[in-house]
Amino acid sequence: MVDDLFPSPASLDKASIEEGTQLAPAFDANGLVTCVTTDADSGRLLMVAHMNAESLRRTIETGEAWYWSRSRKTLWHKGDTSGQIQTVVEMCVDCDQDAVWLRVKVAGDGGCCHTGRCSCFYRRVPVGKGICEPLEKED
Amino acid sequence: MVDDLFPSPASLDKASIEEGTQLAPAFDANGLVTCVTTDADSGRLLMVAHMNAESLRRTIETGEAWYWSRSRKTLWHKGDTSGQIQTVVEMCVDCDQDAVWLRVKVAGDGGCCHTGRCSCFYRRVPVGKGICEPLEKED
Repeated sequence: MVDDLFPSPASLDKASIEEGTQLAPAFDANGLVTCVTTDADSGRLLMVAHMNAESLRRTIETGEAWYWSRSRKTLWHKGDTSGQIQTVVEMCVDCDQDAVWLRVKVAGDGGCCHTGRCSCFYRRVPVGKGICEPLEKED
Repeated sequence: MVDDLFPSPASLDKASIEEGTQLAPAFDANGLVTCVTTDADSGRLLMVAHMNAESLRRTIETGEAWYWSRSRKTLWHKGDTSGQIQTVVEMCVDCDQDAVWLRVKVAGDGGCCHTGRCSCFYRRVPVGKGICEPLEKED
């Protein structure tokens, strides 16, 4: 099981953080790590969000994605109201443990973005231009 | 060309930010947006980093990945010393414009992580366990 509190990275040396088996998330000044969420089947990038210690703990314990909503300042069980529950197929952590990656299966209508799209990333920024434009294959 | 300064999202309404063609990055209190970088060929998640306005401007103008190093507090042209230049194949922005996604081709030895690996995400966190363990197929 997951401890209530994760150890501080400050209690570990660099080699342990980068190469060890101890999960010691490097929360930022706001107590958050970045979370990248991709579709486990297609590999598509769905969203970028944030997790505090409690949302990270719940995600690990339940196998469903819990985030921290920075705008609402609340724990956010993705899909609670929309039905778009994200079941974790695999969770990874990066070298310095300040970012996690969720590969998920999306329930409900399969959507993710509050605009109704499958992915929050539906616009490209062309090289050399300070604009964004719809992707040709927008879902 | 890209303006020296991006417009503030505060100058736009929600619909324009989410559905418009105006790039108006929502920099956080530290002046940063999150950047997710994936391999354009394999789709693999390589790294998560941050960009300030200047690194975002340079990335858009040059078609190569520029980040902001939070630890060194400097602009960071990825690959300048390692040769692992990241050429942007496609850049996307998310719904609320506080995250960008780079699909890149990596030059040099094809690596990305400072530990020598192709990706910074080389450890998984099993559901129900507060540990991390090497991915079976680590590069």
